[in-house]
Amino acid sequence: MTDLRINGARLLGRLQALGEIGRDGEGRLTRLAASDTDRAGRDAVAGWMRDAGLEVMVDRIGNLFGVWQAGPEGAAPLMLGSHIDTVINAGIYDGCYGVLGGLEVVQTLREAGVQPARPIVVAAFTNEEGVRYAPDMLGSLVYAGGLDVDEALATIGTDGTVLGEELARIGYAGPHEPGFLRPHAYLELHIEQGPVLEREGVPIGAVENLQGISWQRVTIDGVANHAGTTPMSMRQDAGQAAARVVTFLRDRVAGSNAPTVATVGCMAFEPNAINVIPSRAVFTVDLRDPDEDRLRAEEDALARYLDDLAAAEGVTISVERLARFAPVTFDPAIVQAIEEAAAAHGLRSRRMTSGAGHDAQMIARICPAAMIFVPSAGGISHNPREHTAAAELEAGASVLLDVVRKLTGVSP
Amino acid sequence: MTDLRINGARLLGRLQALGEIGRDGEGRLTRLAASDTDRAGRDAVAGWMRDAGLEVMVDRIGNLFGVWQAGPEGAAPLMLGSHIDTVINAGIYDGCYGVLGGLEVVQTLREAGVQPARPIVVAAFTNEEGVRYAPDMLGSLVYAGGLDVDEALATIGTDGTVLGEELARIGYAGPHEPGFLRPHAYLELHIEQGPVLEREGVPIGAVENLQGISWQRVTIDGVANHAGTTPMSMRQDAGQAAARVVTFLRDRVAGSNAPTVATVGCMAFEPNAINVIPSRAVFTVDLRDPDEDRLRAEEDALARYLDDLAAAEGVTISVERLARFAPVTFDPAIVQAIEEAAAAHGLRSRRMTSGAGHDAQMIARICPAAMIFVPSAGGISHNPREHTAAAELEAGASVLLDVVRKLTGVSP
Repeated sequence: MTDLRINGARLLGRLQALGEIGRDGEGRLTRLAASDTDRAGRDAVAGWMRDAGLEVMVDRIGNLFGVWQAGPEGAAPLMLGSHIDTVINAGIYDGCYGVLGGLEVVQTLREAGVQPARPIVVAAFTNEEGVRYAPDMLGSLVYAGGLDVDEALATIGTDGTVLGEELARIGYAGPHEPGFLRPHAYLELHIEQGPVLEREGVPIGAVENLQGISWQRVTIDGVANHAGTTPMSMRQDAGQAAARVVTFLRDRVAGSNAPTVATVGCMAFEPNAINVIPSRAVFTVDLRDPDEDRLRAEEDALARYLDDLAAAEGVTISVERLARFAPVTFDPAIVQAIEEAAAAHGLRSRRMTSGAGHDAQMIARICPAAMIFVPSAGGISHNPREHTAAAELEAGASVLLDVVRKLTGVSP
Repeated sequence: MTDLRINGARLLGRLQALGEIGRDGEGRLTRLAASDTDRAGRDAVAGWMRDAGLEVMVDRIGNLFGVWQAGPEGAAPLMLGSHIDTVINAGIYDGCYGVLGGLEVVQTLREAGVQPARPIVVAAFTNEEGVRYAPDMLGSLVYAGGLDVDEALATIGTDGTVLGEELARIGYAGPHEPGFLRPHAYLELHIEQGPVLEREGVPIGAVENLQGISWQRVTIDGVANHAGTTPMSMRQDAGQAAARVVTFLRDRVAGSNAPTVATVGCMAFEPNAINVIPSRAVFTVDLRDPDEDRLRAEEDALARYLDDLAAAEGVTISVERLARFAPVTFDPAIVQAIEEAAAAHGLRSRRMTSGAGHDAQMIARICPAAMIFVPSAGGISHNPREHTAAAELEAGASVLLDVVRKLTGVSP
């Protein structure tokens, strides 16, 4: 038993195979939630689950589960999961690594003939990316009881489709109520999607918490006027005001010692003409911090700044909240188990904060949870250049295997 | 003769009539250069020129002239002009007031039976707005010899059309070489398109110079990365760098005592996603100043700032020059004649700088020129709300009449 090892070739082969499902004529990988390509990806994963001897189950929001019934009647399962939907023009590791890594661990255990003390479930949650339907992490949010399933099924997508109808169309509107398998604990293996592990040369991240996320859309209304004939002192320039918010956020956040990050990713000017002072600027603000009090303080500081700015620039400013998730603290015992498993494999690890949102943050509402990160080359994700070396992928799955053994009583 | 007066009702009626030509189903006025609606507008103006007894002539770039042959053989004509092409969803005064005001003055003189000492020409120049074909002020630029006519005719429009083909299609590709009538002097009557005259309660602007214009497109390339997982210190945020340019320009220009104006009217982020650090920002810079040395100093200051910024932010910055016109100084004697004419009508006037570009700046290359401004309500132009009161429109045309009389030897 001490030489129990995951099948790295099988894991990598499945990652590659899944990564070929959903490529368009130009080779771009896109599997938006509940689309035809998502169906094809789900079919492949469900097939592999059955190959591994698992029972495939689907809940009403389309979350896909491969269940290994084990342990005493009624024992709560250990859940391993992530998602297989992707962004547009995606890489092959984001989410898929957690689903297929979990499956690889389960299959390894089954092939070794061990008997875990409780069921183990491999989960692929619906619409984690949020590209087609909002919010992101929708399937795990519903599963954890944070969003009513019927409300979620009625969600209208960016393409005008209804999520529930699309799930039925692709054959993944299952019979089970979300939450029907209440986990004993949840583990998610994932690529870091950031530069920290690579930069520090550390192969394993023991993720101890996850940043809170605040998304807002800010709309600034000024007055369009001729760029040549309007003196600087008589302008109500919405674009100028927007630029001041962008620099304010960076100067404030980068000047503190806190791990807060602030990003303005979307920006649009109207009328967007070279010789017209912008009458309107619309932009997004993405604020994240692992500490709820600090995140709230940053939101408050922004709100105060916008008030002052509106008065100073003669513009009106409105703010719409797009998303808000409190920071999540993962289970200290599981985090420690991850560190110990890494050490047992001779792998350096470091505790870290997840900067991205993950299904784990939702499932953490209903059970102890933690995540294992592996390095992302160049910190790049949501991009075809997303890459993690084969040895690093195998190392992460090996650590997961050991933590699963510990949590299911499969002694070495 | 001393009671020679323009026919205000006729002028206002023609402005209204021309302003109805080119309205779409929603009542929006758009007459882009060399379009079908431009043809209809030209047909109306040419008809009014003929009604006034003028000979209609068209040059190869489509500039439309109504010629009153007068004075000794070979005498250089006094030219009065502007343009009748419009922006999208335009007002009715911009340009049209100069053409129809000039026509009104000529018709008034003809009806009075006077004999000017030289020909008088009313001109409507092609593609002043530059919405469909670049550059703006194209017709007058070609007329003044600043752009080769064949090169100009080959211009591809924003809709993929070729200017020369469109002019031929609408019947306004004339036989005359641009510049065939070399003016003795040029006068352009125009709405201010800015707030100064209205704010000061002055009805007549004696425009003594015109700002130099520098248009640049700046492209900043950074690195797209995850908004949650990339520490602030590891970012190469193209949007952040762009915002810093916007605030730099305003702080520098507004902090000086010079009349320089700086505007960032266009802005686009890529990939423009809420949770992705912008990899690219593209924006325009519109810099204007009536003094060439100061305009050049502002351009140099921006270039130095961009160099420093690229180093500080870890981004690459490229700059493309879109347009550059040196400031224009109008003819002091004509400017003085405008002031005197205003005073003779009991109208206050002030010397001023034109913040916008006008055909006059091109024609000033080949003859003495000046402009007369009337107030724009709220400083608004390029907008359906563009408005100048009837009495102010008549006052401007009356001042033009007197200056024309002075320049053509028609004594009061």
